[in-house]
Amino acid sequence: MRAAVTRAGKLVVEEVPDPVPRAGQVLVRTLACGICGSDLHALDDPEAFNDVVRRSGGTAHDIRDGLVLGHEFAAEIVDYGPGTVGALPVGTVVCGPPIGAGPQGTGIVGYTPAYPGGFGEYMILSEAFTLPVPNGLDPHTAALTEPFSVAARAVRRAELSPGTVTMVIGLGPVGLAVVAVLKARGHAPVVAVDFSPRRRALAAQLGADLLIDPAVESPYDRWTSLGVIPGMMDRMAAEYRGLRPTEAAVFECVGAPGMLARVVEGAPAAARIVLVGVCLRPDPIDPGLLANKELDIRGSFGSSPAEYRQTLREIAEGRIDAGAVITGTTGLNGLTGAIAELGEPDRHAKIVVDPSLDRAAIR
Amino acid sequence: MRAAVTRAGKLVVEEVPDPVPRAGQVLVRTLACGICGSDLHALDDPEAFNDVVRRSGGTAHDIRDGLVLGHEFAAEIVDYGPGTVGALPVGTVVCGPPIGAGPQGTGIVGYTPAYPGGFGEYMILSEAFTLPVPNGLDPHTAALTEPFSVAARAVRRAELSPGTVTMVIGLGPVGLAVVAVLKARGHAPVVAVDFSPRRRALAAQLGADLLIDPAVESPYDRWTSLGVIPGMMDRMAAEYRGLRPTEAAVFECVGAPGMLARVVEGAPAAARIVLVGVCLRPDPIDPGLLANKELDIRGSFGSSPAEYRQTLREIAEGRIDAGAVITGTTGLNGLTGAIAELGEPDRHAKIVVDPSLDRAAIR
Repeated sequence: MRAAVTRAGKLVVEEVPDPVPRAGQVLVRTLACGICGSDLHALDDPEAFNDVVRRSGGTAHDIRDGLVLGHEFAAEIVDYGPGTVGALPVGTVVCGPPIGAGPQGTGIVGYTPAYPGGFGEYMILSEAFTLPVPNGLDPHTAALTEPFSVAARAVRRAELSPGTVTMVIGLGPVGLAVVAVLKARGHAPVVAVDFSPRRRALAAQLGADLLIDPAVESPYDRWTSLGVIPGMMDRMAAEYRGLRPTEAAVFECVGAPGMLARVVEGAPAAARIVLVGVCLRPDPIDPGLLANKELDIRGSFGSSPAEYRQTLREIAEGRIDAGAVITGTTGLNGLTGAIAELGEPDRHAKIVVDPSLDRAAIR
Repeated sequence: MRAAVTRAGKLVVEEVPDPVPRAGQVLVRTLACGICGSDLHALDDPEAFNDVVRRSGGTAHDIRDGLVLGHEFAAEIVDYGPGTVGALPVGTVVCGPPIGAGPQGTGIVGYTPAYPGGFGEYMILSEAFTLPVPNGLDPHTAALTEPFSVAARAVRRAELSPGTVTMVIGLGPVGLAVVAVLKARGHAPVVAVDFSPRRRALAAQLGADLLIDPAVESPYDRWTSLGVIPGMMDRMAAEYRGLRPTEAAVFECVGAPGMLARVVEGAPAAARIVLVGVCLRPDPIDPGLLANKELDIRGSFGSSPAEYRQTLREIAEGRIDAGAVITGTTGLNGLTGAIAELGEPDRHAKIVVDPSLDRAAIR
């Protein structure tokens, strides 16, 4: 098959052997695969990426060589491996969480050679995690179930109570997805923060209640006007008076060095900070602020099969407009160019790779 | 009254005006006051302390000048201010959370000139937060309700489920208190970690199930033998097989720079890390590890009046042996020397200040 393979840290489109489905696995043809921020981080700083993955106890394959990336996919069923049920007919459009499981071991699809990802024409998926795309949902949109389910998990990790003020810092695809999930679940107010006017406009389209351009004002100056008590002493004093101060949650969706430290500084007392952005370099945070303000920092990683299924249903039923974040499509040949374009936040949010577009271009 | 007052960052015993109880306040005579690690940190690195307190929205009085420290106290009632109920007779032995409240504003007793702390002969307390010491409990032990209630809050912040493996890093007074609270609440196993044989012995006395000397072995090498899956990929694989992996919680009670980063590195996937130790300097942690391992870091600060009351009951009923951590007592004149001795972890855990000991020495 044709696939974009990492070779010395670059993506090279070449012919590689078709993957072969083994026990419990399905061979599928890729219809669409989103370019994820994690892939950009990994290609940009592969040593740090390899290091963080290894130290987390993740699949320890060197990202720089021999990988077919892509874990936000929709595909159609081509064939079944041995020991499968085969309930879905060949040709069914499917998607699923990027969980590779089977005789080759467990790994994340697109991050191990055992389970090549969606930047190739074919993939092998576990039948157990493969879901039919419902309601005739467009495969390009269905592919984005994955990043939106990552947002759904991040929202679940925040364990929000009604009335919690939520602030989403960074409106890349995952930040936008967090906004969409928060609004689909009825949370308000949702404060959306990004330098880019285009991304703020997308957040507004997805229902954000308040948009902040951090070049104009610090989002952290807004707590009081949003009804949140920023300082720990004032909050304690309110609690002693029997009040129940408004809660706050901050979703850190930027993933650049220095961001976590800034959020720890700017978060109000007793806030929950959910880490959704991928940052591969250390960030010097103040444990004293964490303790004195009683902050929670909660890491969030991927999504569970149940979170994925729920998100797919919400997208298919129109409650989450995942398609809104798609700002471009490309074939495999255009992948490297698309990655460069993603560096311009005012131009793009999510670009979806569709391997069939190369054939169309050639024909 | 005689009091140890901060003067240019040193503790100087001198005569200062007696505090005067105002509306809703009680004048008490100090019977005992523990020396807290926070006080040591504050005296050791006052600029960082002032800075962290200011940035947290705490009472912003310069720790170096004009403060009577001491927030772990027991005392006896001497007089009542205006507008009080006066339910407890003069002479009643009392204690309470160090919450200063009244016409002077809200602040932490011992950290604001408005509410001088227990390193002086007299204090003014809010009647609302003043509790009688029950069961004839010794005032030196009753004074330690405060640090044990801090441990109780830290344990509550961990939201432990039954069977969670708990690890307490650092067996100073608060680490020992965390061990005692965990055991009083029936948690097991409790793994207690410290370089000092004396402190490990105290942890054993308080019920710790496993003692680790980090000079001999890394506590983080023990996860697998304790039934905890350390790596995130192995944990995910277990979850996909329908298993519910054993949970883990780590209580960081050292509060030295570099500790949080080390705990983030060594904690198993999905662990909760509760920050109990006070660290005033930034710690470069890896957000990528936090996210990939889905760690929670939860700051814990002080305790609520309800947590204090519950802890006092548990100590008075003998379920928590708070007195076990007392390794010395001193008058005000010996305070500076006692603080120096606390730098030797194999010699001391908690030293209690009793202003009457100076009089005894003089007589």
